[in-house]
Amino acid sequence: MGEGPHVESTAEIPKNCFSLDSLAGAYWKGSEKNKMLQRVYGLAFESQEALKDFKVKRKMAMERDHRKLNIDQHYFVIDEEVGKGLPLWFPNGTVIREELEKLAKEQEFLDGYERVSTPHITRENLYHTSGHLPYYADSMFPPMEVDGEKMFLKPMNCPHHHLIYRSQPRSYRELPLRLAEYGTCYRYEQSGELAGLLRVRGLTMNDAHIYCTAEQVKEEFIRVMQLHLRYYELFGLENFWMRLSLAESDGAKYFNEPEVWARAEALVIEAMDEVGIPYESVRGEAAFYGPKIDFQVSNVIGREETASTNQLDLVMAERFGLTYRDQESVERAPMIIHRAPLGTHERFCAFLIEHYGGVFPSWLAPVQVRIIPVASAFFDYAEKLEKELKSRFIRSQVDLSTDSFGKKIRNGAVSKVPNLLILGEQETSEGSVTWQRYGTKERIKLGFDTFLTQFEAEIRNRSDWRITAN
Amino acid sequence: MGEGPHVESTAEIPKNCFSLDSLAGAYWKGSEKNKMLQRVYGLAFESQEALKDFKVKRKMAMERDHRKLNIDQHYFVIDEEVGKGLPLWFPNGTVIREELEKLAKEQEFLDGYERVSTPHITRENLYHTSGHLPYYADSMFPPMEVDGEKMFLKPMNCPHHHLIYRSQPRSYRELPLRLAEYGTCYRYEQSGELAGLLRVRGLTMNDAHIYCTAEQVKEEFIRVMQLHLRYYELFGLENFWMRLSLAESDGAKYFNEPEVWARAEALVIEAMDEVGIPYESVRGEAAFYGPKIDFQVSNVIGREETASTNQLDLVMAERFGLTYRDQESVERAPMIIHRAPLGTHERFCAFLIEHYGGVFPSWLAPVQVRIIPVASAFFDYAEKLEKELKSRFIRSQVDLSTDSFGKKIRNGAVSKVPNLLILGEQETSEGSVTWQRYGTKERIKLGFDTFLTQFEAEIRNRSDWRITAN
Repeated sequence: MGEGPHVESTAEIPKNCFSLDSLAGAYWKGSEKNKMLQRVYGLAFESQEALKDFKVKRKMAMERDHRKLNIDQHYFVIDEEVGKGLPLWFPNGTVIREELEKLAKEQEFLDGYERVSTPHITRENLYHTSGHLPYYADSMFPPMEVDGEKMFLKPMNCPHHHLIYRSQPRSYRELPLRLAEYGTCYRYEQSGELAGLLRVRGLTMNDAHIYCTAEQVKEEFIRVMQLHLRYYELFGLENFWMRLSLAESDGAKYFNEPEVWARAEALVIEAMDEVGIPYESVRGEAAFYGPKIDFQVSNVIGREETASTNQLDLVMAERFGLTYRDQESVERAPMIIHRAPLGTHERFCAFLIEHYGGVFPSWLAPVQVRIIPVASAFFDYAEKLEKELKSRFIRSQVDLSTDSFGKKIRNGAVSKVPNLLILGEQETSEGSVTWQRYGTKERIKLGFDTFLTQFEAEIRNRSDWRITAN
Repeated sequence: MGEGPHVESTAEIPKNCFSLDSLAGAYWKGSEKNKMLQRVYGLAFESQEALKDFKVKRKMAMERDHRKLNIDQHYFVIDEEVGKGLPLWFPNGTVIREELEKLAKEQEFLDGYERVSTPHITRENLYHTSGHLPYYADSMFPPMEVDGEKMFLKPMNCPHHHLIYRSQPRSYRELPLRLAEYGTCYRYEQSGELAGLLRVRGLTMNDAHIYCTAEQVKEEFIRVMQLHLRYYELFGLENFWMRLSLAESDGAKYFNEPEVWARAEALVIEAMDEVGIPYESVRGEAAFYGPKIDFQVSNVIGREETASTNQLDLVMAERFGLTYRDQESVERAPMIIHRAPLGTHERFCAFLIEHYGGVFPSWLAPVQVRIIPVASAFFDYAEKLEKELKSRFIRSQVDLSTDSFGKKIRNGAVSKVPNLLILGEQETSEGSVTWQRYGTKERIKLGFDTFLTQFEAEIRNRSDWRITAN
C-alpha cells in the first residue's frame, strides 16, 4: 500500500467497514528527542464482510501461531546456547516430523523412489562444480579448514545425489532413477529474518531427484503433481494453485540450447494442463537451470505458503558429467527433476500446527489417545488398556491424577489430544470404552476390541475424523 | 609377537602345524638401493586344528570383508569429492540403515523412550560447558566463524539432549526420562585411520540418554542390558561379553563425592550380576564421569567389536545445571545413563554385512524377493505378483531378462536376494509360487496368498529362516 494517508478524509470510509483497532506510543518523526505521541491503529475494508473476515482470520492466526501453540504443546525449542535458527525438536515435534517422513517414505516407495543417505558436509570443490560457489556463498555457512582445504555444510542435497548417480555407469534401463532423502541442509539466513520454524538455518528437506530421459519428463512431472494432490487431499488443503516460472522469450539467456529449453517448457506446460491444477505462468522468472513450478497453498487461517518448489534441470547433468547409455549405446545427459512436495520439516510442521490449531488427526498426533478413568477404582483397567495400546505402537497416556472428572476432561482439551477414552464402572465391567473426540460433545461407548479395530484402521488410512468417515 | 625370529630353527615347528602362505618382493633392509629379495610368508600354529581354523576364518573374513562385498552389492561409496571418511549411502545400504533405525524406534517405544531431533552444529560454549573443549578438540572438526563466533559440528549428541532436558522444569514424576535420537555426529579421525565403514568421520549413533534418580539407576541399567540381549538374539549373535571399567581404588580422582561414585559402581555391578551376561571388570579405566560398560561381540568370522558403550554419568547433570524436584520439592541432580546398543550405523552395518556375508534375513535385506519367470509367457503373472508385493511394501524385483532359467537362478544367487519366487506354467495356472531360499536347493510350491501370509509374518517378526522357524 505504501505510505499513507490512503484517503483524503476518513469520511470517505463507510462507517460499517471501519474499526478502531489498537493504540501505541510513538515519537514524533521517530526520534526519541521529540515528544511522545499517541498512535491510533484502525482497520478499513471495502465491505463489512471483508472487515469481519479479516478480524476472524487474524484472531485465528494469532491463536494458532505455531510459536504461541508451542508454549504449551512443546514441539521445539530454539536455544541460544545452540544457535539462532537451529531448533531442537522435543518428543511432540519429533513425532510429527517422523510421521511425515514415514508418509513420504511410503508414498515414494509406491511411486518407485529409492532412498539414499548423504553426509552434511563436503569439500569445497563440489559447490564450484554445481555453481553454488561463489554466487550462493552468502547463503551458505562459512567453511571449516580441514586437512588444509575448505569444507562446507551442505545448503542443498542435489550435488550429493548427483554423485550417487555418477558412481556407476547408467543405462536407459535404469531410468527414471528416483533418489529420495529427507536431508538436513544448513543455510545462513540473516538473523533478522529468522522466525520460529518458518525461517531457520537448519532445514530438513523432503528432497528427491528424478533422473530421466526427455521422453519421460512429462510423465514424471505428472506423477510429481499427483503426489502433491494426494498430500493435499490427506491434509484437507483445498486452496492451492501453481506458479510456473518460465524463461524470458526463449531460454537463450539461461542455456545454450534454446530448442531444448523450449521443448522442456512445452513438456512441463503439457503436464500441468493434463493434471488440471490451476496455475499462473510468469515469463522471465525461471531459475538459470530450467523452468520451475511453485505450489502455493493457503491453510485454514489464510496463510499462503510456497509449500514446495519443483524444478526441471537441464544444466546440472552436464556440469556433473552425468550420462546414461541409450538403446543405441549412445551416451546422453539425463534431465533432472528436483522436487520436494512436503517442503522442509520446519516450514511444513509450522504450517500444519497452524492449519490444525494443534489438534492433529490421530495418525499425526504426538499423543493419540488419553485414557481417563473417572475414579481410582478404574486405574487398573486404565493401565491395562494403556499397556495394550502401547504394545500396538499407539501413542497413549493415562490420567492417573486425583482431579475431578470435569477437570480431567478439561485437561484433555487443553492437551489437544484428539481422542479421549473415558472409563467408569460400566466400561470396566464390560471391557468397553467411551470414546470422545476433541472439540465434540458426543460420546460413544463401544467394546475395547471394536475401538481397537476402528482406531487402527483410522491410523493406517491416515483418516481425519473431521473430514472423512472411517 | 614383536620382531622375529620367533624360533631358533623352523625344525622346532611340527610339520602339520605349519604352512607356506604367500610370496612378496622386498628390498634388503628396506632400501630400494639394495638388492630385491624374495620374502616367503608362512603360518605356524600350536596345533593342526588351530592352523586350519585360522585359514577357514581368514578366508571367510576376506570373502566377507564389507568393502569387498560392497563392490557388487552397492551399499555405499566414499567419494573423494565429498571427503574422506564420509560415506554416501546407496539405496541398498540405506535400506539397512533405515530398517535398523525402525527396529530401534520400535524397541525403544516399547521401553518408554521418547524421540528427539537436534541440529548438527552448535555454538562453541556448549562444549566448554560439557568439558569437551579444549580437551577433545583434536577429535572435533575445526570451527566455522559465524556471526563473529565459533560454531562446531557436534561430535556427540549428549549436550543437545541435556539442553532439551533443561528446557523445562522437571519433576520426579517425569523420571526416568529417556530421550533417544539416531543422531549424526562428526569426528575428525586421522585420515590414516579411516577404513571403509569401520572408521569414519561422519557417524550416526543409536543414541539415548536416560535421566533418572539414584533409586532408578539399577533397574534402568538392567533394561538397557536386556535390550542388548534382545538385539543379539535377533541377529543370532551368541558370542558376547561385557567389560566393566571402574575407577582406580575409589572415584576421588574423578569426582568429588567418592561415596556417590562407590554407590554408583555397586549399583552397576548389582545390575550386571542380575542380568547374568559374563563380564570382566577393569579398575582404573572409567571415564572421568562415571563407570562404563562396553559390550564386546564377535561375529561369525571371529571379528571382535566393541559393539556398544554404556556409561553411567555422575558429572554432567551438575555441569549443565540439570535438576528435578523430588517428592519433598527438593532440587536434585539426576543421574544420566548414556547408551547406544546398536552403536553407529556405520560400524554396525559393516559388522552385519560381514556377519551375514551380504545375505540378510528377509526383514533387513535391501531386496527381499526376486521373482523369476522361467519364460516370457509368465512375465505378466510375474509383474502382477511384483505389483502386489510392492503395494504391501515388500521390496521386490522381477527378472524379465531373456536369460536361461539356470542363469536367472545363478544371477539370483549372485545378487544375494534371500528369497527367489520361481514362476512357470503350473504356478501361473494355479496362482502359486515356487519359493527357494538363498543358498538352499529346496523348492517349495505354495499358493501366493499362503506365501504372502507366511512371508509378512516372517518380516513382522524379524525372523531369520536360517536360525528360527517361522
